[in-house]
Amino acid sequence: MERSDLVIVGGGAAGPQAAITAQRLASIEKVTVIRREPKALIPCGIPYIFGTLGSVEKNIFPDALLGNAELVIDEVTSIDRETQTLITSGGKSIGYRKLILATGSQPAMPPIPGRELDNVFTVRKDMDYLQKLQSALEGAKEVVIVGGGFIGVEVGDEIRKRGIDVTIVEMLPRCLMLNCDEEFCIRAEKKLTERGVRVITDSRVTSIAGDGKVDHIELSSGERIKADLVIIAIGVAPSTELAKSAGLGIGEQRGIRVDQFMRTDDPHIFAIGDCAERFSFFTGKPSALRLASIATSEARIACVNLFEQRRKSEGAIGVFSTVIGDMAISVAGLTEGAAKDAGFEFVTSEVMAPDRHPGSMPGVTQLQTKLVFERGTGKLLGGELCGGISTGEMGNILGSLIRSRATVEDVATLHFGTHPALTSSPITYPLVDAAEQALTKI
Amino acid sequence: MERSDLVIVGGGAAGPQAAITAQRLASIEKVTVIRREPKALIPCGIPYIFGTLGSVEKNIFPDALLGNAELVIDEVTSIDRETQTLITSGGKSIGYRKLILATGSQPAMPPIPGRELDNVFTVRKDMDYLQKLQSALEGAKEVVIVGGGFIGVEVGDEIRKRGIDVTIVEMLPRCLMLNCDEEFCIRAEKKLTERGVRVITDSRVTSIAGDGKVDHIELSSGERIKADLVIIAIGVAPSTELAKSAGLGIGEQRGIRVDQFMRTDDPHIFAIGDCAERFSFFTGKPSALRLASIATSEARIACVNLFEQRRKSEGAIGVFSTVIGDMAISVAGLTEGAAKDAGFEFVTSEVMAPDRHPGSMPGVTQLQTKLVFERGTGKLLGGELCGGISTGEMGNILGSLIRSRATVEDVATLHFGTHPALTSSPITYPLVDAAEQALTKI
Repeated sequence: MERSDLVIVGGGAAGPQAAITAQRLASIEKVTVIRREPKALIPCGIPYIFGTLGSVEKNIFPDALLGNAELVIDEVTSIDRETQTLITSGGKSIGYRKLILATGSQPAMPPIPGRELDNVFTVRKDMDYLQKLQSALEGAKEVVIVGGGFIGVEVGDEIRKRGIDVTIVEMLPRCLMLNCDEEFCIRAEKKLTERGVRVITDSRVTSIAGDGKVDHIELSSGERIKADLVIIAIGVAPSTELAKSAGLGIGEQRGIRVDQFMRTDDPHIFAIGDCAERFSFFTGKPSALRLASIATSEARIACVNLFEQRRKSEGAIGVFSTVIGDMAISVAGLTEGAAKDAGFEFVTSEVMAPDRHPGSMPGVTQLQTKLVFERGTGKLLGGELCGGISTGEMGNILGSLIRSRATVEDVATLHFGTHPALTSSPITYPLVDAAEQALTKI
Repeated sequence: MERSDLVIVGGGAAGPQAAITAQRLASIEKVTVIRREPKALIPCGIPYIFGTLGSVEKNIFPDALLGNAELVIDEVTSIDRETQTLITSGGKSIGYRKLILATGSQPAMPPIPGRELDNVFTVRKDMDYLQKLQSALEGAKEVVIVGGGFIGVEVGDEIRKRGIDVTIVEMLPRCLMLNCDEEFCIRAEKKLTERGVRVITDSRVTSIAGDGKVDHIELSSGERIKADLVIIAIGVAPSTELAKSAGLGIGEQRGIRVDQFMRTDDPHIFAIGDCAERFSFFTGKPSALRLASIATSEARIACVNLFEQRRKSEGAIGVFSTVIGDMAISVAGLTEGAAKDAGFEFVTSEVMAPDRHPGSMPGVTQLQTKLVFERGTGKLLGGELCGGISTGEMGNILGSLIRSRATVEDVATLHFGTHPALTSSPITYPLVDAAEQALTKI
């Protein structure tokens, strides 16, 4: 029987990261990665297959990054924790000293009548499946996306780039409402509309209808919308069957239960990424955040802790970005809504400034910035940005500030640099400017 | 006689920032800004006048930002500290309760024979002067830039955009050598060369020759280079005449001496920006850094301290960015060279990764990242980045990390977000990846 120092199950973001980090940091002789897919996809790139990239092949994870890890294409069907052995559907037995579960998540499928019709898809991280979706899009003229979260919005915007009619149907009053405060949702919806995407909110799809193949959907309002293809993107559920069948505990957010070192109930088994439970940096409570960047961070934490407990998770801050056309939105930490829900007392401040300077520089975008600070302590709880390309990395500045428990005074006295073609002016630099405004209220 | 609660002398970056912050934070009834120029330029935008913007008028500071501050166009010729009164060349007497000197800097002029010829310019922050330079460029075919620091490089690259032959002559072995480590200087020079700018390093201009108007320059090697226009950009000297004549002390780096609250020797007079002395965040020693972002930070510090000492300067980290063509370089804190000069023991790590993901995304740039960590403490001392548009804000992440005294472990466990069109992949995110590499050496 084969035996590895470390076996990693999963080929999404967390699995490969663990393979890379384990080889780099720990004194491990043999690392084995087991995944089902012959070729693994880059998870965040999936929406871009349908427009910008144009093919599934352009979004393949380069296995060369796995270095000397042994790659086994197979499905793990059970874990024998006593003998520390995995059994695969291919009939293999693979022993492990330490095991990392990075089994990811799968798209949630709501019980809508008609969901079994041809040309009804989810956004599954599976190459063959996405190739079928890609082919089906070739002939499509009218596409309905069920779900206006960031996957629905990105997929909708990308498909629209092919000239196809796209309608997004969202149950909540606004698209992106679980991620952003309303003023940013409104900007997102406005941009989608400008780009020719129809956005229907506050509305539920009651059925998908058609003869074998989808023909239209019906909304709770009674409205019918023609559709020759439907994509359901209402969220994901952690893939925990393997862990459950091995008797490992499951958390409140349906992920595999782990401690701050990313250890499951079994000290030889770690769980990371979408399949794992995590907690909020702010409240310590279970968090519903599922992001590739969190998955890779957890991989880095787990690897260091394989043989001794050296690195603790601080919980998830959550920094996420999305793009619609040429407009980017980035959110770090708590929105105003999330801060309210979590019971914080806070002040907010908002500024708008060109993201280059002078405002006459080509490529300039109006950058909207909103910051949320805790009243009393003055701690930065979160921020939202809507602007151009640099918005993504600005969200990462906020991530670092939140993590270092920066206060409104720290943000107002930020050490930053500026350049006409790259940033706002030093006088209107939005993070500092918003903090200065907050200082007058806190 | 007029009397103001706060008089600010200077219209560059620091002066306007002080006017804005004072109105926002302190309970000040009357703020007066005195500057020489009827229209003030945006300092960092000046190089872009010559190419991207195409006119001086597109780089004017919008005086509306000054809010309710009274704007006086005049030159302050002396300060009577006893009566707290300023005398202007226009014959005005203006009283102050508190005075902020933000008199800036002027271009250094080396004693090169021929510097008085027609069509020999510096990069002066003066609208009329730059309009003359702009007009002179209309007929120019061959321009020589003396000095390959970032102003020389930016001005050279911009003038090249007009199709003019440009040669940059730098005394040191590399362009940008005072700001970057050699590998980044090499990338900058390579990009300049690709764009058709001739770069001559390790070479001194011994004379500028011509009959009334410049015709050519001569190098220490004896080589002659034809030039119908010469721009000298070898650095700046702080403008401290007014402060000196008022008997205020001057520091080692030739700036007006200030304490951590930005107060000069006179507790009613503050000095900020290029005219002021500052100290290094890392060593506490006098620093030669002169950047608009530092100037505005100092303005924010000074304003809060006008009537009580509330905000201390932590010293200058220095975050700066520059752009050549479509390539941006950003530097935060100490380069390897600067760390060596300051006597630190350190380790460095370097990574290269696409700045979008997958690498097949349009607009992708190879992003080179180098980090410097102190040996022993593991503290981040500095970082250099060379890549695309987002490089500028990534430098600001480094600025925040350095300021929070982040260690290599903190950077390796950064809380960050990623997006295909905006950032590197979560697996190769360069700040984290470089920190992980450094962890193996520290």
